[in-house]
Amino acid sequence: MELRAEIISVGTELLLGEIVNTDAQFLCRELSALGINVFYQTVVGDNPGRLAAAVELARGRSDILITTGGLGPTCDDLTKQTLARCFGLELVFDPESAARIRDYFAWRFPAGTMPENNLQQAMLPRGCRVLPNDWGTAPGCIFEAEGRRVIMLPGPPSECRPMFRERVAPYLRALSGQTIRSRSLRVFGLGESAVEERFRDRMNALTNPTLAPYAKAGEVELRLTARAESAAAADALMDPVQAEIQAELGDLVYGVDAASLEEVAFGLLRERGLTFGCAESCTGGLVAKRFTDLPGASAVFRGGVVTYCDQAKEALLGVPRGVLEDRGAVSAEVARAMAQGARRVLGCDLAAATTGVAGPDRDDRGNPVGLVYVALATPEEVFCREVRLGPGRDRVRTAAAHHAFDMVRRALQGLAVE
Amino acid sequence: MELRAEIISVGTELLLGEIVNTDAQFLCRELSALGINVFYQTVVGDNPGRLAAAVELARGRSDILITTGGLGPTCDDLTKQTLARCFGLELVFDPESAARIRDYFAWRFPAGTMPENNLQQAMLPRGCRVLPNDWGTAPGCIFEAEGRRVIMLPGPPSECRPMFRERVAPYLRALSGQTIRSRSLRVFGLGESAVEERFRDRMNALTNPTLAPYAKAGEVELRLTARAESAAAADALMDPVQAEIQAELGDLVYGVDAASLEEVAFGLLRERGLTFGCAESCTGGLVAKRFTDLPGASAVFRGGVVTYCDQAKEALLGVPRGVLEDRGAVSAEVARAMAQGARRVLGCDLAAATTGVAGPDRDDRGNPVGLVYVALATPEEVFCREVRLGPGRDRVRTAAAHHAFDMVRRALQGLAVE
Repeated sequence: MELRAEIISVGTELLLGEIVNTDAQFLCRELSALGINVFYQTVVGDNPGRLAAAVELARGRSDILITTGGLGPTCDDLTKQTLARCFGLELVFDPESAARIRDYFAWRFPAGTMPENNLQQAMLPRGCRVLPNDWGTAPGCIFEAEGRRVIMLPGPPSECRPMFRERVAPYLRALSGQTIRSRSLRVFGLGESAVEERFRDRMNALTNPTLAPYAKAGEVELRLTARAESAAAADALMDPVQAEIQAELGDLVYGVDAASLEEVAFGLLRERGLTFGCAESCTGGLVAKRFTDLPGASAVFRGGVVTYCDQAKEALLGVPRGVLEDRGAVSAEVARAMAQGARRVLGCDLAAATTGVAGPDRDDRGNPVGLVYVALATPEEVFCREVRLGPGRDRVRTAAAHHAFDMVRRALQGLAVE
Repeated sequence: MELRAEIISVGTELLLGEIVNTDAQFLCRELSALGINVFYQTVVGDNPGRLAAAVELARGRSDILITTGGLGPTCDDLTKQTLARCFGLELVFDPESAARIRDYFAWRFPAGTMPENNLQQAMLPRGCRVLPNDWGTAPGCIFEAEGRRVIMLPGPPSECRPMFRERVAPYLRALSGQTIRSRSLRVFGLGESAVEERFRDRMNALTNPTLAPYAKAGEVELRLTARAESAAAADALMDPVQAEIQAELGDLVYGVDAASLEEVAFGLLRERGLTFGCAESCTGGLVAKRFTDLPGASAVFRGGVVTYCDQAKEALLGVPRGVLEDRGAVSAEVARAMAQGARRVLGCDLAAATTGVAGPDRDDRGNPVGLVYVALATPEEVFCREVRLGPGRDRVRTAAAHHAFDMVRRALQGLAVE
């Protein structure tokens, strides 16, 4: 059965921008994994009138209504009262919930006494299914009215997430017969618009699985999403389309459901028992930082050298002063010499190097912002790419690091590197 | 004049939970700082019908309608078409935007040709105010119709944020008579709950300005917010409260409206004409990366050395093998030797060093995850802090880098460093 869910997030702090609405993202992801469509998500403040308006709208267009927030003990917490009123239910005292809340306080504050307003959290819509809160005080609840299912969850992610996973997901799984599975094909070296142009017809033609492109910083993700009765059936729907895309894009697809270029490079290096290091100018440590973000990086990563001035390039990496003077720091020759120097001083098998103009201004030789040379030294040879990146300092640095990891990946996969 | 704004975020990826809606948080925060109320925020997918429904609802209850997303070149990008239709406007070709898009591609891909679908981004509602995009390709726009103001912004935060700050905020500031000003006191070295406990009474008592604490990764922000007819009047309301807080917290407040610890450290180094460098183990390049995130860092930053194995610590920084063997890499002695080595090999005035256990596992000597030594070498002496950080690899690394910059700041301000 096709189910439509709608999420209403309650909290003035969301509308003031004081917190990010991570509950909504979490719920959207979990619901789509359950094969339940989310067509709308709304945020309202701690205001009964506006909350009621959002509920009125939602009950007319959705089968399942999920609220987060507003279940607490303070006078701002009006979600239960408002939803009960909208559906003509009264709130009744739930002794079990009250006992749990008392126990929770007795355990948290052995000395102290519990503020009585906490018992307001034990007032629940008559006939609802109570969702005990093992991670905080405010219980959630589910009730069915007028053919709609209403689910109320606490706002704090540390309570909302486990309560959904343990108490709500099983309830919803029983409702929806379906599973949605998706796969992400990660593409580097082709722009979003180029990818979209190549696949537009298929994107329009395909309905199950669907195919959609997403631009990520400096790369593109092609997402396949299939809906079926079982995970196996959904996979079977995606397999041929994935094969077709990979046949067409070839080695531009660097991974399927891969987390990042550095993770793919890390995996290949570890498989082959090779060590890695880097020499960075314009990326200023970003290549090393991203590689060492990966748990276990120390098995492969020897170290890195960030040379932000000519003297350091010469002293630490042995880049010949003559080359620095003739070609300038932003040049293919210097990038190559940096990569070779890093291999030597770090004693690693592969070393990547970056030198370029991250901005905001041109360098002293008038090289434009975004011009970057990325080199990779292997035991056999030294590769170098000249790339134009940006706009913006962050994008230049991010994309330059992408290129370094992409060169590692391609070298180890025996593909053209430059 | 009291203005009501409403945000409509467009993107199926939001409803699938693939990305967090950080644009909405950013806009809510900026709008409330402009004294503009946000009563509703809605997320819809890339679906013209549902987007139109959300627009119909919003135009009936809000003065200002802001959309994010759906301005790109792909066939999913339907925001402009849909909003124009809702308000009975036609889309017309904007040659200036087209020229910008062509220039952008010519620069990015000198060899390649631009996919024609990119020019779809130059189709804009007739009579609108174009918001040029200096940070990407899709221009935004503002139009006024039926007494409503409609503002369309691109989805990527790297484009949405600067476009709002530089092109939309001035427009909105002119509309709203009231000014809300806020100040952020950045605190390092005291936990959020400790800060809250110290200021709870004042937080509850104060109404204009208001005082609120925000926990940031490893630090705390105390935000003062005042509402008045003029910026000067708002400032006058905040001055005495700020003075009181600073008198109480003293040098734990590292900056007011400062962007980060590294920015404060950078400013002090530049003022004094001193150079900086670093040697990193557990932070793996994060200290160098964060420092070089700052435009103009090259005036101060000489470079960094990431030594992720003992051999590199010895070979690149001259850490004596004996010390590495006796004390182990995670020790105050090694941290000090790394900082001194970095000063020497990088030829910089100050050098920071980090060595510790970022996790996920204890090191080979059984040191616990989160144990980190942070050292700072100056021309006069060498300081070292032993800190216990975490939980989690990212938090350990982030907080360790915070300590490095805090030590620079305190050393240059003549405060106790260890």
